[in-house]
Amino acid sequence: MEAHVQSLPENIPLGLYLWLRIRQIGIGTVLGVPGDFNLELLDHIYNVPGLRFVGNANELNAAYAADGYGRINGTPGVFVTTHGVGELSAVNGVSGSLCERVKVIHVVGQTPRPLQQAKAMIHHSIGDQPDHQLYNKVSKPIRLTAAELWDVENAPAEIDRVIRECVISCGPVYIFMPIDMSSEPVPSSLLSTPIDFSPPIDSDAQNRAVEAIVGALREARSPCLFVDALVQRYDAREDCAALAKRLRVPVYSTHMGKATVDETEEFYAGIYHGQVDDKAICEGIESSDCVLVLGSVNADTNSGGFTRKIRKDAEVQINPNNVVVKGERYDGIAIKQVLSLLEDALQGVEVARVKPPQVLPKPLPVDHAAKNLTQSWIWSRIAAFLKPHDVVMAETGTTLFGLTPERMPSDVRFVSQAYYGSIGYIFAASLGIELSLEDSHHEKGTPRGRTVCVTGDGSMALTIQEVGTMISQGLKPVVVVLNNKGYTVERVIHGALQPYNTTPKTNYSHLLPLFAHPQADQCFHKAVTKEEFVKVFEKAELADPQVTHLVELVLDAMDSPWRLTKQLAMRGEAGVKYLTDVGFIGPGKVGIGG
Amino acid sequence: MEAHVQSLPENIPLGLYLWLRIRQIGIGTVLGVPGDFNLELLDHIYNVPGLRFVGNANELNAAYAADGYGRINGTPGVFVTTHGVGELSAVNGVSGSLCERVKVIHVVGQTPRPLQQAKAMIHHSIGDQPDHQLYNKVSKPIRLTAAELWDVENAPAEIDRVIRECVISCGPVYIFMPIDMSSEPVPSSLLSTPIDFSPPIDSDAQNRAVEAIVGALREARSPCLFVDALVQRYDAREDCAALAKRLRVPVYSTHMGKATVDETEEFYAGIYHGQVDDKAICEGIESSDCVLVLGSVNADTNSGGFTRKIRKDAEVQINPNNVVVKGERYDGIAIKQVLSLLEDALQGVEVARVKPPQVLPKPLPVDHAAKNLTQSWIWSRIAAFLKPHDVVMAETGTTLFGLTPERMPSDVRFVSQAYYGSIGYIFAASLGIELSLEDSHHEKGTPRGRTVCVTGDGSMALTIQEVGTMISQGLKPVVVVLNNKGYTVERVIHGALQPYNTTPKTNYSHLLPLFAHPQADQCFHKAVTKEEFVKVFEKAELADPQVTHLVELVLDAMDSPWRLTKQLAMRGEAGVKYLTDVGFIGPGKVGIGG
Repeated sequence: MEAHVQSLPENIPLGLYLWLRIRQIGIGTVLGVPGDFNLELLDHIYNVPGLRFVGNANELNAAYAADGYGRINGTPGVFVTTHGVGELSAVNGVSGSLCERVKVIHVVGQTPRPLQQAKAMIHHSIGDQPDHQLYNKVSKPIRLTAAELWDVENAPAEIDRVIRECVISCGPVYIFMPIDMSSEPVPSSLLSTPIDFSPPIDSDAQNRAVEAIVGALREARSPCLFVDALVQRYDAREDCAALAKRLRVPVYSTHMGKATVDETEEFYAGIYHGQVDDKAICEGIESSDCVLVLGSVNADTNSGGFTRKIRKDAEVQINPNNVVVKGERYDGIAIKQVLSLLEDALQGVEVARVKPPQVLPKPLPVDHAAKNLTQSWIWSRIAAFLKPHDVVMAETGTTLFGLTPERMPSDVRFVSQAYYGSIGYIFAASLGIELSLEDSHHEKGTPRGRTVCVTGDGSMALTIQEVGTMISQGLKPVVVVLNNKGYTVERVIHGALQPYNTTPKTNYSHLLPLFAHPQADQCFHKAVTKEEFVKVFEKAELADPQVTHLVELVLDAMDSPWRLTKQLAMRGEAGVKYLTDVGFIGPGKVGIGG
Repeated sequence: MEAHVQSLPENIPLGLYLWLRIRQIGIGTVLGVPGDFNLELLDHIYNVPGLRFVGNANELNAAYAADGYGRINGTPGVFVTTHGVGELSAVNGVSGSLCERVKVIHVVGQTPRPLQQAKAMIHHSIGDQPDHQLYNKVSKPIRLTAAELWDVENAPAEIDRVIRECVISCGPVYIFMPIDMSSEPVPSSLLSTPIDFSPPIDSDAQNRAVEAIVGALREARSPCLFVDALVQRYDAREDCAALAKRLRVPVYSTHMGKATVDETEEFYAGIYHGQVDDKAICEGIESSDCVLVLGSVNADTNSGGFTRKIRKDAEVQINPNNVVVKGERYDGIAIKQVLSLLEDALQGVEVARVKPPQVLPKPLPVDHAAKNLTQSWIWSRIAAFLKPHDVVMAETGTTLFGLTPERMPSDVRFVSQAYYGSIGYIFAASLGIELSLEDSHHEKGTPRGRTVCVTGDGSMALTIQEVGTMISQGLKPVVVVLNNKGYTVERVIHGALQPYNTTPKTNYSHLLPLFAHPQADQCFHKAVTKEEFVKVFEKAELADPQVTHLVELVLDAMDSPWRLTKQLAMRGEAGVKYLTDVGFIGPGKVGIGG
């Protein structure tokens, strides 16, 4: 890359500057939808070695795919849309990236500056004297920051600033580029200074925080780790894994933190989803006198409807930018550095080790003898299908609740959107995951695992056209769709028999051929019975897929995993404590955890 | 309806109140996507006689479909989404409704009030202490007004206020309902007072405006009408048609005003799209000494890239809420009333009548001998397929430019989104058109014409899953898709050979079977050659469709209608005058009219 920069002319177009910066930080793919106010900007992508443009079927799908891309490699997902009609279609996807702290850069091609100044009634605008920056205001509440490019003098610095903000604060940023600016010249020498990604740190506070945590661990009789989502989001996955191996105390996880730590290790205890999960797990973590809570997201769907009961006096919080030990708060830290320093500091330190709780095998489910597929049967088998280096993706719905308790092989990554919970997300995001796996395999030689995307028919319908992009790009996800004729997660929340929870009938055998899949028939697999399921998942082409595969699992409309049913049942019991505390009366009325 | 109100109990749930109000104003269908913060609200729909819920595949499609519904009957389109993830996905659709002044009511089911007050981390929220009203701020710039329901005492009045605003100001409004409020009791007697839809009028100013217009017409030697979009949006279509018949002066139309006036009348002159259209048309309207410009939208895509040249001293503007005659402005008027009063006032008034310009037949196109389909050949044949009472829908792209100059039969309605221009719109909107035609046929006995939706493969991909709703609802649109392997409108603007303008290959024969169309094979029709085209459009089942039909027309990737090519070519000629005036240098850089 450096060599390439030196061969550039003295001045380069701003559009090219942007893409070279994007490439410099290790990004290999730009997603998005072309539109007449971004075409010239897209042209410059083709002049950047190692960078490709992959067009999406629509902008929401692009935002989801960029979010998926941003979850895996530590590099942001990037996507491009056009003025108004494009950028607004993506707002919900970007909002999800803010909620779940995913690094995403949304580049918007705007109308040219003179037309903005003239308030010209260019298509995609609103009104007689349109304010072309109106849409910029729409996305303001759901982004970290934006580069509102206007003056070419400071445009490169603004681009650098928001890329930095995206990476160090983990969240979505915008770059608004009036399209006439994409050809404005900027000095290529600016590229020789890399963007500074060092987080703002108070080293002294950080060291004191680490000391305090070590002190707490020394004193503890039954310490444990409780790993949540923000560990991986803030790039501390490996540091966390190393800390876990150093400590070897029981490690609990959340829905959103799942598979951050190797689940095959004997110290891995399981998912603590408040009072929903196994009693032994609850007793284990709730009796601990020192719980290191890492990167916590205490949302209803990540906490069993706010039913976590960790002892207040036992809690040591390690958050992305602060640490709290016994009521003492240390600001100006970075979670990645703290975990790394902590692992070092613990060398030679004696820490008490209790055994992880032993979860007894579940009794046979009442429907265990069924010949057809049931939710009580499929999840452990889907987990057994996984291999190291796979990325498994669980849609918010029965999948999230069904798959999380199952143990994953080493080096598997688990992707869900449990807090934001926008259905349709997982399927479009799997495109970004695939591209990211491909890019990092190509670039860093990391193993090219499979993307195993598990979704439902109701959810998949929202973003189903993105399969066309997967096929045309030669990607090879294994997409598993639970066909239960609609929104089963909603049926168990409310309106079990209401027609609104039934979606149009879908004959999935036609999905791959619709987008001209070259081996459509061989790559569509359907199972109604357990026997069929076993045969499907034994196929060699699913073990090592070379093209997009689609597996349809037919399930009963009212069948749901026991954990979902239990969380919902708890709305009338323990789970309402929180609601009562906040003054909410009438627990049956709110879909906590739905 | 009144009888029904009297049979209601003294108090009814607020949710029911909302739907009864919606029903009272003639709406028969509520669109939307169920989500756990709107389910209880949806339940009440089933208790309103004559009101149905039709679920969409996703929320953007719902917004588009509601916009389509709102364009036909004079009644607003209504759709329901859920907190955050649902409402944000719809933002672009709503923004289009504001741009194009379409009546839409967007009902958002929010989290319960106590959870909002507690800033609880309920799924779909953002942050540790989430502000549940964050999303409300997102849509603020792209709506007319919102009912932010919180206090049940004023909730019915707030609902009534925004419904009134939607109807009289023509645009999208929001109703935010915390889901716990849907069951709160309100007096049913409130329903006995209908919502007041009378616009705020200054009768004196209105009368003076009409007098001034009559005066201008009396003096004119070559008066004409120039009919634009806001006539139909503000429910003045019939008044305009009556005025045209009274005056019998030449009537010109815009893209967006197309088919407001009967195009079979001898006084109908054609489309005036600035300097793009026929010279005779330009000379006709540009030489007129009195042009009544009705409901104008002077956007680039509606004015040939700002190349209208109507004489300033000849222009009489009749806008939705004001009239301007010879520089004198009259405020406080309503276009519908002005047109109606004008028609009355002209009784017995002598008005000069010139003949409409005679447009000479076009020379044979260079590709006239082609056996395969060409853009120079198809448009007049698609127009010839139309029948009275059809609604024909043209996607922004080659279709809009190809179909607008063709004359329509009487009583045909023409729907496009020429100013906002969000691709994917037309196909999802056709669902709303179908439902609206069905509702008004059922309710008022209006003829049940066909919905003929003409789109392209690039555009249709964005919203393609909505065909599932059409099929499952037993609707019967004729969907015509031009398959030219991507974004042809963009190819002619910029990047003809760039890969970003090519979309994934689509084999449309699998689309109807994917969503379990009962007669999929018979209802899919494909034409590559002109001969095949003729055979397809002669089929009896397309003349009187009973189910959803899909027609694929295969076209060359670079083939486009002459009017589009001409408008784009003009970017380097007459069309740049405007751009030069506003100081824009480098005309090749902006896709005016793309």
